[in-house]
Amino acid sequence: MKGILLLTLFILACFVSGSAQDLKAEAAIRKVMDDQAAAWNKGDIDGFMAGYWKSDKLTFVSGTEVTKGWQPTTDRYKKNYNSREKMGVLTFSGLEITMLSKDSAVVLGNWSLKRAKDEPHGKFTLTFREFDEGWRIIIDHTS
Amino acid sequence: MKGILLLTLFILACFVSGSAQDLKAEAAIRKVMDDQAAAWNKGDIDGFMAGYWKSDKLTFVSGTEVTKGWQPTTDRYKKNYNSREKMGVLTFSGLEITMLSKDSAVVLGNWSLKRAKDEPHGKFTLTFREFDEGWRIIIDHTS
Repeated sequence: MKGILLLTLFILACFVSGSAQDLKAEAAIRKVMDDQAAAWNKGDIDGFMAGYWKSDKLTFVSGTEVTKGWQPTTDRYKKNYNSREKMGVLTFSGLEITMLSKDSAVVLGNWSLKRAKDEPHGKFTLTFREFDEGWRIIIDHTS
Repeated sequence: MKGILLLTLFILACFVSGSAQDLKAEAAIRKVMDDQAAAWNKGDIDGFMAGYWKSDKLTFVSGTEVTKGWQPTTDRYKKNYNSREKMGVLTFSGLEITMLSKDSAVVLGNWSLKRAKDEPHGKFTLTFREFDEGWRIIIDHTS
């Protein structure tokens, strides 16, 4: 009887610790994205890029175009957003985080840029992995 | 000395078994997608939908539109592709599978429809999870 009680407590503890771990991971992922938006809104594309995996294998999909690697992705951003006017004010919203394992997750959300003359916006799905240095985007699909 | 050798062999065995597991998972994921394309090309949307997680939480993102749930996603396909002419011949190509854990993966690839009058095409990232019934798409982002 005591054995069953202890086992039940152990299983409950595992669930609680599992969901506490998920909450911690989700908070860390939100923080990466908050930091990205803050960097963008200071005109700091290098700071924005800190949220991405610094690897040749980073994959960035925008519509039908695929960019491979952290440096080409950085170059693409710097080319497409070469002024504060073009960068506008970035907002991420409606984030839905799906934990896939203790060190991987997918985030669905909306992006919008508030600019003087237009307000481009769309959806993204970001695949995140946790590395020693923290959670980083390994695949970004934006449309 | 013998201990170190045994430990080395054990670590090697773990790597080999880990990558054998990954290869098996990748083959199973490719099979789901092959079956989807084969069903589509027989005009069988229900068969095509068998590759998706049969859940209200299935997430389907096409451009800026999000559809939630297996049934609404099925309805959307049946509405947009209500004839064999509209369905055309579906091909998936250039699949890049990234294993995230033993039961989750992301697949980047190209889709194209060969039809009498046009050939629409684009990119997708599919988040797969393994369930008791097999590997299923839980998030589809198509652009």
